[in-house]
Amino acid sequence: MSLTQFSIIDSTLREGEQFYGANFSSEDRLEIAQSLNNFGVEYIEVTSPCVSPQSRQDCQQIARLGLHSKILTHIRCNLEDAKIAVDTGVDGINLFFGTSSLLRQFGHGKSIPQILEIATEVITFIHEQSPATELRFSTEDSFRSELSDLLRVYLTIDSLGIIKRFGIADTVGIATPNQVFNLVQILRQSTDKDIEFHAHNDTGCAIANSYSALEAGATHIDTTVLGIGERNGITPLAGLIARLYTLDPETLSRKYHLHELLNLHQLVANRVGIPIPANHYIIGEASFCHKAGIHTQAILNNSKTYEAIDPDDFGLTRSFLLNHKLTGKHAIA
Amino acid sequence: MSLTQFSIIDSTLREGEQFYGANFSSEDRLEIAQSLNNFGVEYIEVTSPCVSPQSRQDCQQIARLGLHSKILTHIRCNLEDAKIAVDTGVDGINLFFGTSSLLRQFGHGKSIPQILEIATEVITFIHEQSPATELRFSTEDSFRSELSDLLRVYLTIDSLGIIKRFGIADTVGIATPNQVFNLVQILRQSTDKDIEFHAHNDTGCAIANSYSALEAGATHIDTTVLGIGERNGITPLAGLIARLYTLDPETLSRKYHLHELLNLHQLVANRVGIPIPANHYIIGEASFCHKAGIHTQAILNNSKTYEAIDPDDFGLTRSFLLNHKLTGKHAIA
Ligand SMILES: O=C(O)CCC(=O)C(=O)O
Ligand SMILES: O=C(O)CCC(=O)C(=O)O
Ligand SMILES: [Cu+2]
Ligand SMILES: [Cu+2]
Repeated sequence: MSLTQFSIIDSTLREGEQFYGANFSSEDRLEIAQSLNNFGVEYIEVTSPCVSPQSRQDCQQIARLGLHSKILTHIRCNLEDAKIAVDTGVDGINLFFGTSSLLRQFGHGKSIPQILEIATEVITFIHEQSPATELRFSTEDSFRSELSDLLRVYLTIDSLGIIKRFGIADTVGIATPNQVFNLVQILRQSTDKDIEFHAHNDTGCAIANSYSALEAGATHIDTTVLGIGERNGITPLAGLIARLYTLDPETLSRKYHLHELLNLHQLVANRVGIPIPANHYIIGEASFCHKAGIHTQAILNNSKTYEAIDPDDFGLTRSFLLNHKLTGKHAIA
Repeated sequence: MSLTQFSIIDSTLREGEQFYGANFSSEDRLEIAQSLNNFGVEYIEVTSPCVSPQSRQDCQQIARLGLHSKILTHIRCNLEDAKIAVDTGVDGINLFFGTSSLLRQFGHGKSIPQILEIATEVITFIHEQSPATELRFSTEDSFRSELSDLLRVYLTIDSLGIIKRFGIADTVGIATPNQVFNLVQILRQSTDKDIEFHAHNDTGCAIANSYSALEAGATHIDTTVLGIGERNGITPLAGLIARLYTLDPETLSRKYHLHELLNLHQLVANRVGIPIPANHYIIGEASFCHKAGIHTQAILNNSKTYEAIDPDDFGLTRSFLLNHKLTGKHAIA
């Protein structure tokens, strides 16, 4: 695993808009895109331009901002949506199709051969219209799909020679780190294309699963600010940063403007209308707050004793809670 | 891994009290203990009776409630604290000693031989005073300790024949699931005693690491309600429940009163004075909220399409957000 090689695809403006509390205005979208760019994520994914005239206009406007982050949009894999998306000027288009039997039966109703037929048509169409568009194809609900179906889909589509990146999605948030490692590794051995991983957090493993995907050779990880998304959301950006930071603080500090992390989170929290949870990764109010007497004493000797992350690197400061029930002569830990 | 064999040690009344916002009154402590018992955690860990006359009285009172959950207290490994703890009537005592070079040098200042001498004295003393007390010994900051030091400490203490359970603690929250698996597995192969795992969540892997510990043979997992604890806390109870539930819903439903999970969280959130984060596991307001049109449509056909957890099992209900920007003719997912 090389932390210099991987990219963050932040989906606050797509998956995040599926969070129950999110209802971004055009202005919110532009500001959030700017702030994500300031932090330095490599990609920003925005809501499909097919949803409404407004989403189309916002998508075009964000694509035209000339940000350093590449702009992606995320559409259903059909010709109608593809036609609209190619006209937006985005750098890339993320296509997806549900491959589990549950989604095939109770969702879109298509068989694997039908999925392949449609995907081939859509991918070929986009590529003809706009050869420079970076195309990604992902299998929705990958972890409840048959491995044979997944491989048939990925390999057939790979043979078109158009797709730049394949996506694996833990749509209902059930995968374990080992399951993620195994599936990513199989795909890593089956294709030379980039691999994106999208982790829902229903069972609390989104961050660990994203890390596991990187260990197995994934190149792109989806995140959202505060982890917002459908249900309880996906891999929180600050959580992924925390995870990778302790393993290689220098690389992370070089790749991203870590001092922008708090601003970005304050902006999104404000626009969603939720408080930043006190124990959110890195930027939560409690993250560098030391309370037990033993901790406070040791931190004063050497902050590494009870801190794996240096708040300085994020422009943050540690604090000590003194004079509470747990300090004094008989301090605890 | 057998999900019928493992036990939860909830530490909301010990680690949770080290959360910056927590300042529980005696009444809070009794109510929270009752509520944890109603949910059905196997153990409740409470703050050291050595902290203050009040903590001593509260510890004694909780021990006398006759709860189904066993009551543990958590003390520094010294004779002074041990003397006070044995008189409280708790079922068990959790001892710990920092074994990393950072904690030895900048924390308590003891060498490994000194740690062993002190631990032997304290363990032997408690056992003589109160042979029925369930004793646990853990190495604080296990993942920054030398494996040779850890094994020397565990094996020497094991040879006393007194300790019922050994603890591994990811004190600064840096371990990866693989590192946890490896260390727990080594300890599993080195002793026949129970193994407890305590995971801080600084890098977002506490839930996955706890699961990894169980896969490797751990028998006890530490949690707190809402994950509260030093800094950004430890394994959140609802997150661990979510993780294990999707793997074996029947066993989890049999072991715990899942319908009590929301009450317990509302009580603790109320007493800490923080809101339950909207995307907290299972009991967060967003957890069973469906927004994208594709999701809503599929859920109406079969709720399993986009739900890995059945809200019914927790006495909760799903909801649909309609009439927002992402629905309509061109619904997205
Ligand atoms: O396009 C993808 O890879 C992910 C789609 C999505 O949000 C999901 O499957 O949860
Ligand atoms: O006693 C233990 O195992 C854990 C102590 C503690 O809270 C920690 O190391 O984070
Ligand atoms: Cu998603
Ligand atoms: Cu702890």
